[in-house]
Amino acid sequence: MPKIIVEVMPKADLLDPAGKAVANALQRKGHSEVTNVRIGKRIELHYANTPTEADLQAAKQIAADFLSNGVIEDVVNVIVEN
Amino acid sequence: MPKIIVEVMPKADLLDPAGKAVANALQRKGHSEVTNVRIGKRIELHYANTPTEADLQAAKQIAADFLSNGVIEDVVNVIVEN
Repeated sequence: MPKIIVEVMPKADLLDPAGKAVANALQRKGHSEVTNVRIGKRIELHYANTPTEADLQAAKQIAADFLSNGVIEDVVNVIVEN
Repeated sequence: MPKIIVEVMPKADLLDPAGKAVANALQRKGHSEVTNVRIGKRIELHYANTPTEADLQAAKQIAADFLSNGVIEDVVNVIVEN
């Protein structure tokens, strides 16, 4: 099924307590190579047909308007996946 | 900063109420081209140095053991991003 993938992450200068908790757990379990963890969202928009360039532009608008909170999050990627 | 990105999605045959709510909202707002929405997680593991092949293998294990619930979620991607 054709999809557009939208990736949203908490802004870099914001605390991410859930990510921090996972990072601490990995340290305790011996994975000292992982210095930090951040947890964001991966949102799949499904389409009946292969998304057009217009669909991609609309998806970028949707990502900014509906799928992310610009105060605390960044949209890091909007890509077509067939 | 070198990262490994882990992408986790709800299994295809599972209901995703949050995704469904977003899909319905998009329909109401006139984005009828989007037939469905599913919401998963995008997890960044940060590393001090460029991850090695061993780090990638460890990350795949971490993704399966810590970052996803195999009963309801699939790990769809584990990739190095420099």
